[in-house]
Amino acid sequence: MIIVHATFHVNPAKEAEFVSSLTPLIAASQAEEGNISYDLHKAVGREHVYTMVEVWRDQEATAIHNKSEHFTAFAATAAEYLTAPLDIQAFEGQALS
Amino acid sequence: MIIVHATFHVNPAKEAEFVSSLTPLIAASQAEEGNISYDLHKAVGREHVYTMVEVWRDQEATAIHNKSEHFTAFAATAAEYLTAPLDIQAFEGQALS
Repeated sequence: MIIVHATFHVNPAKEAEFVSSLTPLIAASQAEEGNISYDLHKAVGREHVYTMVEVWRDQEATAIHNKSEHFTAFAATAAEYLTAPLDIQAFEGQALS
Repeated sequence: MIIVHATFHVNPAKEAEFVSSLTPLIAASQAEEGNISYDLHKAVGREHVYTMVEVWRDQEATAIHNKSEHFTAFAATAAEYLTAPLDIQAFEGQALS
């Protein structure tokens, strides 16, 4: 499995637009055959910080995702919403029962 | 590394109290020697759902955390805030560069 925590520091002036811009990305990513979960969260106690918490079946699934139309379209526009570089923490591992 | 996604479905009537009850737990957990990150997030698009996104050095670190005073004190009261059982997804793995 691949676990990804992608953290976005968002321009307050564009926050609502940013969140709604993610709707098609979230829906399409959750529908991908190799996706296990793909959920957007807002940090508690830190303003304008969001984290996408993702779990994928394997590296092949993330490679397919990263080349997908919905991800590349989002990646092309993301920078205009952010006040800091996208912070991606990715891990390869297996579920603990 | 151990990655944990602990998801809480919170009683709307007790939501503010729940979030503030987590403050000492979060501070003490982040201070633990084996902790890498321990952050609370509110789900976007799902009401009253929170996820603690945690990264620990190893299983020994999580064992120490689970026996800690701050975690056991929280665990003893958590049920009164929740409308569903605590959903814990845990993974053992290593960071991808």
